[in-house]
Amino acid sequence: MAEDNSIFVGGKPFMNYVTAVVMQFTTKNADEVLIKARGKFISRAVDVAEVAAKRFLDGQIEPKEIRVDSEEFQNKEGKQVRVSTIEIILGRK
Amino acid sequence: MAEDNSIFVGGKPFMNYVTAVVMQFTTKNADEVLIKARGKFISRAVDVAEVAAKRFLDGQIEPKEIRVDSEEFQNKEGKQVRVSTIEIILGRK
Repeated sequence: MAEDNSIFVGGKPFMNYVTAVVMQFTTKNADEVLIKARGKFISRAVDVAEVAAKRFLDGQIEPKEIRVDSEEFQNKEGKQVRVSTIEIILGRK
Repeated sequence: MAEDNSIFVGGKPFMNYVTAVVMQFTTKNADEVLIKARGKFISRAVDVAEVAAKRFLDGQIEPKEIRVDSEEFQNKEGKQVRVSTIEIILGRK
């Protein structure tokens, strides 16, 4: 999967991400799209995947693989914190 | 998997859920634990799974399967809304 098939979900308007996913499958004819997010944006990444797969491309795409992980790092106050990550691979049915 | 091996993540204190997951594996000797959540609590469910698997039971358990889905329903204002769901199955390595 080419790197530009991946969409990193953050704080921009929700439909920006949905449109980006749908366009990868339609105008760019991608076979797979990778949706990534960290921390509180994980819920949003799932929403993006579900709206793309169920509302816009219903019957055409589905989640192929979902991975979760986490990274530990030191925050500004010098405290060890852990942030969770998700990767959702959407593919054609 | 018995139904009481499932933990539904919501708005209670974070460590309640982590403890519940860890106890299923330790004192109840479960082989698998199902973590479920809806909407904005999805991020939290991933955090619970990661903290249980990486901090408390490191090297012993891992995510075996992750499913996402969504349900459409009518809200109080009579509007169709979609809510995403996640199920994370943690199992022994």
